[in-house]
Amino acid sequence: MNNDDFWVGGRTNSKKMNSSKPQWEQVGEAFVQHYYNTFDSSRSNLGPLYRENSMLTFEGEKYMGVQQIVGKLSALPFQKVQHQIVTCDCQPTQTQPSGILVFVNGNLLVDDSQNPLKFSQCFYLLPDSTNAASYWVHNDMFRLNYG
Amino acid sequence: MNNDDFWVGGRTNSKKMNSSKPQWEQVGEAFVQHYYNTFDSSRSNLGPLYRENSMLTFEGEKYMGVQQIVGKLSALPFQKVQHQIVTCDCQPTQTQPSGILVFVNGNLLVDDSQNPLKFSQCFYLLPDSTNAASYWVHNDMFRLNYG
Repeated sequence: MNNDDFWVGGRTNSKKMNSSKPQWEQVGEAFVQHYYNTFDSSRSNLGPLYRENSMLTFEGEKYMGVQQIVGKLSALPFQKVQHQIVTCDCQPTQTQPSGILVFVNGNLLVDDSQNPLKFSQCFYLLPDSTNAASYWVHNDMFRLNYG
Repeated sequence: MNNDDFWVGGRTNSKKMNSSKPQWEQVGEAFVQHYYNTFDSSRSNLGPLYRENSMLTFEGEKYMGVQQIVGKLSALPFQKVQHQIVTCDCQPTQTQPSGILVFVNGNLLVDDSQNPLKFSQCFYLLPDSTNAASYWVHNDMFRLNYG
């Protein structure tokens, strides 16, 4: 990655630039759509996105590994849930392997409540060691933002 | 890092566990205190915390490198600012080098306003290559959470 890569698709609004949105933004945004679609339709199916060394910090509580993480998310006490993404920011990291930070702010509608809760969530995605086009969630931190 | 490391200091409240808060939590919390103290007293002095390949996404605008980042932060249109940390979550990453994700939610008081703005910010800290006890900000994403 170089500076130009980070700038492309950033502050400029030209069609040329928009059509060449950097790869990590495409990956991050596609991940977020897939993640919340899965969460909102069937939380128990989130397992394939995590690994044994994945970490979740949910409202300050810590969980590690697929079973703990999906167990926690599946046990959350609501029947219906809908995430509305307000902003989704992505950045690449220059580590080995190189990952993608994804920072989401949005609204959460739970059961039949008419009042959305605001939430913030930070994901760190790493590529699969055998398929660089496939990413998994290494880190996940979630907070509700009380008014 | 192993699972036990991530759990120590996490969900348990025993004195024994609290006294052995994991290193990345200590580093992350100390960083956050230092960062906002510096920001609130003299933003132009934040430069040493960034590097040429540091990235800042501030309200969706992208900046890279010390000069751009500190230039943006210094030019923000307020005279007085105070960050109040409400939550600070930290996680280690199993990359090379191994970094620390820091996820902050808090309130921002600007100039003489009595109404705090809610903000969320995500930092990714990496160790200095020559001094593993010293960390710099590789990634920084900031959002105000409008009510």
